[in-house]
Amino acid sequence: MNEIKLFCPASIANLNCGFDVIGLCLDTIGDEMIIRKTSEKGIKITKITGADLPFENEKNVAGVAALAMINAIEIDYGFEIEIHKKIKAGSGIGSSSASASGVVFGINQLLGKPFSDSELVEFSMQGEALASGGFHADNVAPALLGGIILIRGYNPIDYIKIATPSELVAVVLHPLIEVKTSASRAVLPNEIPLKTAITQWGNLGGLIAGFYTSDYELISRSLLDVVAEPHRKKLIPNFDQVKQTALQNGALGAGISGAGPSIFALCKGNETANKVADAMKEAYVGTSIPFDIHVSKINEEGVKII
Amino acid sequence: MNEIKLFCPASIANLNCGFDVIGLCLDTIGDEMIIRKTSEKGIKITKITGADLPFENEKNVAGVAALAMINAIEIDYGFEIEIHKKIKAGSGIGSSSASASGVVFGINQLLGKPFSDSELVEFSMQGEALASGGFHADNVAPALLGGIILIRGYNPIDYIKIATPSELVAVVLHPLIEVKTSASRAVLPNEIPLKTAITQWGNLGGLIAGFYTSDYELISRSLLDVVAEPHRKKLIPNFDQVKQTALQNGALGAGISGAGPSIFALCKGNETANKVADAMKEAYVGTSIPFDIHVSKINEEGVKII
Repeated sequence: MNEIKLFCPASIANLNCGFDVIGLCLDTIGDEMIIRKTSEKGIKITKITGADLPFENEKNVAGVAALAMINAIEIDYGFEIEIHKKIKAGSGIGSSSASASGVVFGINQLLGKPFSDSELVEFSMQGEALASGGFHADNVAPALLGGIILIRGYNPIDYIKIATPSELVAVVLHPLIEVKTSASRAVLPNEIPLKTAITQWGNLGGLIAGFYTSDYELISRSLLDVVAEPHRKKLIPNFDQVKQTALQNGALGAGISGAGPSIFALCKGNETANKVADAMKEAYVGTSIPFDIHVSKINEEGVKII
Repeated sequence: MNEIKLFCPASIANLNCGFDVIGLCLDTIGDEMIIRKTSEKGIKITKITGADLPFENEKNVAGVAALAMINAIEIDYGFEIEIHKKIKAGSGIGSSSASASGVVFGINQLLGKPFSDSELVEFSMQGEALASGGFHADNVAPALLGGIILIRGYNPIDYIKIATPSELVAVVLHPLIEVKTSASRAVLPNEIPLKTAITQWGNLGGLIAGFYTSDYELISRSLLDVVAEPHRKKLIPNFDQVKQTALQNGALGAGISGAGPSIFALCKGNETANKVADAMKEAYVGTSIPFDIHVSKINEEGVKII
């Protein structure tokens, strides 16, 4: 195999009570990427469509992840990369992670799969770090591996693929505004009340238990965020209305996707998800802000060869 | 049925990363309690052995829980209660919860089971509150219902019985010293760094996932406490040595049971548990402090009729 074409999925990190530790993989939103073996050594980004991104490896998340990878192995050939972005940068649904995870998955395939999943997660984290300024796996791990992923901790990276209830469907509304990750971080306190932390981890425990037992009511009761959402929601116009209308129309829960501005809802079944999407759309049409909306089942596979 | 004799089990609350939200039920340590229907209305504590506890209902956790219960139903008879304490007060393994959960279970049986499990948990929380000064369910719920219980939240009480891996065995070393709950609380900070909280809930997620999948290695990696243990361990002589020796001898994890002073270890299998118990014992014999030690599988049933 000398060339591979990939679907590189978007992902939702945090999931409310799972702040910084949970992410899930989407199925209907994602970039495309083509990777080719070349006789020339090294990595060369040859084409980028859909976004104005740098071609220099060191300034491009896919470039950084790919370099990290080929520096870890001795080969006398190289790779060229085409990136066709569909996920908008700064959307809060893992645009940079899609590139970082896609490129390491693809190169690993063309190399004959010498690297383990957890090595691939680490390489893609290096790419992601260029965009986020820190080593996070809560978007790259679900994008790479699919499903719902818990990041138990780092040093070394320890991720767990949680069971996905079969009827779970995600809705994502992406208001086309820019919320800088730095702004999203700046509003978070450095310290939180112990009581608040206990509330959050009680809910996280409930969410994980709900996923394993397909207990949608428990998932619904647990999908709360008392830590980040109270601070971050003010950066997202009409957040409260969109969330409320999602819940009123049957969503199990709703919140901020990643660092925002995207707003997600989780639903049981496609019918409810479509109804929730329509209601969320209606709640946003009133604003003058353009937006995208997506309905997606959970992608159990992660990055896919297409 | 006019009389019932009960085994009222001890329990371990917190389980490190599960601070304030997880508890599990023990099998080899527990009080006994006898409850009799009487033609006289009301509750009367007629006998207490093994501890110097008040006979007045309002000053006794069993009395308070029993009163809460009979005040919620119309009956023209009453109950008398014998309490035979085996679990020492202030041990950190749910002595008061054993009394509070035992009495509500027993009276419910003699009444013909009019109350649901969650109503029983609420009644027993009222008894527990007399001892702990707050409404907590992380000892009473596992004592009543058995197994490993997650308290997702309160208002209303929301508890989830988590799957118990079949080879899980607990070891508890109880140093016979008094650690006042008020002292144990006073050492905890009101606020914690957000980063610390995230570490704790990443581990809690891993622990719950480990329980559902019987992944003992994951349970082991997750059984950490970066919130309470660093502050509370100084109240427990030789804590670090006991914990270290438990881990060196194969325990999955070890920590403070409840608010202490008991130290628990979780192990895979009886053989390891007995080895860990011997090592913990040896680490404590060097101190001049007397102690009890218990090895127990997880009690899936909770309070039992004997």
